[in-house]
Amino acid sequence: MNLSDLGEFGLIDLIHNVTNELKDPEHASWQRVLLGIGDDTAAWRSNEQTQLATTDTLVQNVHFDLKDVAWEELGWKALAINLSDIAAMGGVPQYALVSLAVPGELEVENITRLYQAMAYLAREFGVAIVGGNIAVAPNLVITVTLLGSARDEKILKRSSAMPGDLIAVTGYLGLSAACLMMLKEGLQLDAETTGTLRKGHFQPMPRVKEGQILVEQGVKTAIDISDGLIADLGHICEASKVSARVRMQQVPVHPLVKANFRDYQQLALCGGEDYELLFTANKAAIEQVRHAIDCPVTIIGDITEETLPNRVTLLDAEGNIAGYEKGGWEHFRDGAFKAQIT
Amino acid sequence: MNLSDLGEFGLIDLIHNVTNELKDPEHASWQRVLLGIGDDTAAWRSNEQTQLATTDTLVQNVHFDLKDVAWEELGWKALAINLSDIAAMGGVPQYALVSLAVPGELEVENITRLYQAMAYLAREFGVAIVGGNIAVAPNLVITVTLLGSARDEKILKRSSAMPGDLIAVTGYLGLSAACLMMLKEGLQLDAETTGTLRKGHFQPMPRVKEGQILVEQGVKTAIDISDGLIADLGHICEASKVSARVRMQQVPVHPLVKANFRDYQQLALCGGEDYELLFTANKAAIEQVRHAIDCPVTIIGDITEETLPNRVTLLDAEGNIAGYEKGGWEHFRDGAFKAQIT
Repeated sequence: MNLSDLGEFGLIDLIHNVTNELKDPEHASWQRVLLGIGDDTAAWRSNEQTQLATTDTLVQNVHFDLKDVAWEELGWKALAINLSDIAAMGGVPQYALVSLAVPGELEVENITRLYQAMAYLAREFGVAIVGGNIAVAPNLVITVTLLGSARDEKILKRSSAMPGDLIAVTGYLGLSAACLMMLKEGLQLDAETTGTLRKGHFQPMPRVKEGQILVEQGVKTAIDISDGLIADLGHICEASKVSARVRMQQVPVHPLVKANFRDYQQLALCGGEDYELLFTANKAAIEQVRHAIDCPVTIIGDITEETLPNRVTLLDAEGNIAGYEKGGWEHFRDGAFKAQIT
Repeated sequence: MNLSDLGEFGLIDLIHNVTNELKDPEHASWQRVLLGIGDDTAAWRSNEQTQLATTDTLVQNVHFDLKDVAWEELGWKALAINLSDIAAMGGVPQYALVSLAVPGELEVENITRLYQAMAYLAREFGVAIVGGNIAVAPNLVITVTLLGSARDEKILKRSSAMPGDLIAVTGYLGLSAACLMMLKEGLQLDAETTGTLRKGHFQPMPRVKEGQILVEQGVKTAIDISDGLIADLGHICEASKVSARVRMQQVPVHPLVKANFRDYQQLALCGGEDYELLFTANKAAIEQVRHAIDCPVTIIGDITEETLPNRVTLLDAEGNIAGYEKGGWEHFRDGAFKAQIT
């Protein structure tokens, strides 16, 4: 059955059912919902001190190709990239609204799978999917808006980096861009590598808990790696009016990327969409984070006084300037540009 | 200059500047913003008791045709339809996030005009545009997410209509659908009529203050007319498990629609996108609303016990059943379906 057969209200019922079946009714977010899907707006009881909001869009043939991606992966990713933004603020994700623009000839089963993955991930992070919108369009467009909260005004900004701060990153980099390269060039890699690369690109696990730990340990500055390590570090530098030095050898490239791709360093530095957290703080705070957090935390450089025009300098193993490579993930995807303005 | 020339960060700067120039920095919404455009999420101080959230999308060639609509009208409408949803809850609109999917060859000037209209309307209603997202896409897609608040849990639901309630509507109906018919059939009407029809369709004035007055006067049930009077009344009936009788002669058709269109009654009953408020309450409450509100309020029928399968019955001047006309605005726009699930 396709969407045109199911009709508008059938589709709303389906979405309602999928999100309802997978919800965790005991979670605080759901407990506070007054009105979910089915009225003019969603409504919930709120007494947060600081409210966070972000939105991010995936467009067919720009951000994904339906021949490469499974519907579960698409649903996961659409929510995950928003969760990652809340993570990069050190916040608690709470409520999501999902806007779909879909071709009428789409199979209903695909939408079910899309929402199941989204509802599953929402449940993992205590998020209530409380509404959204459906429109017909020639190409699939998925926009998720995610709301969250923070305690007091303790949030991880981009604008608070200070000269003398060290720069650190969670986890490993390069999987997502390596997956794109694998798909683009039709590389045949072993099953484990293929699976890990796909997961890195299509089903990243947002660092929500880790972001909260950063705040607790006194870190003030962070961003999630969506445009690429160098580009995102550039965003921090610009917002903070500082510059940065990155020791290339210290960048934690994922071992499977290192083992399978000649350009592994470029994939890790410029690839983007890794959704790891990049943060700056003094050494003591980073050591505290290391003890409190489950994932690897690697120091990759330091923040300096502002040097223009190049904000981010790469250093080689001997500490010499290794050149400046501009560009985030657009580098890998001609014709696409994308800017997250929240 | 087109968007590809301007580039991603140039476009963000432009949007930041337009929304910044037009903002009202003294308004409470803006006063409470901690982070607007330019970080991973937007952030603001919050101590609302009830939070409201809605999102709505306009898709090129589905909801609008660029040959018919000016960019100012498009920006206005994209925000207005969301404001109308907050109005239909009796809430106070506060924060907006705007997601654009745009073709790279688009003229930058058009985006400026789009945002100026949006920022102007936002200012009118005390809304802070705090973020959003930009993506490239073959067709223009505009998704606005609007957040608002309500006092206590006093909101206008769809599910609270009671047998015995009277049904009332604000303002006049039919302008929006008449405008679509005018454009579709290339009708040449006088300048005043053309202007009024266009304003009705492209620049509706959401009934935000009126929605708040409904809540204050004890009304519990309302919806905004987006799908069409009959369809939206059907939504109330379904959610409330009741039925409704509408006296066709009492439906307030806009005089210019009545004067210029043979099918004026159908335009007013099924046309949709009028963004007037349709509400139910007892007679005393409606009289109080009439005194408190600036716009016309017309009683058009009453709520009865549930009668199935037809929830909405039309009565003619003699009180006889005048038939049941199914369908909201899809009726007028082949191939489009659209469901607002919040």
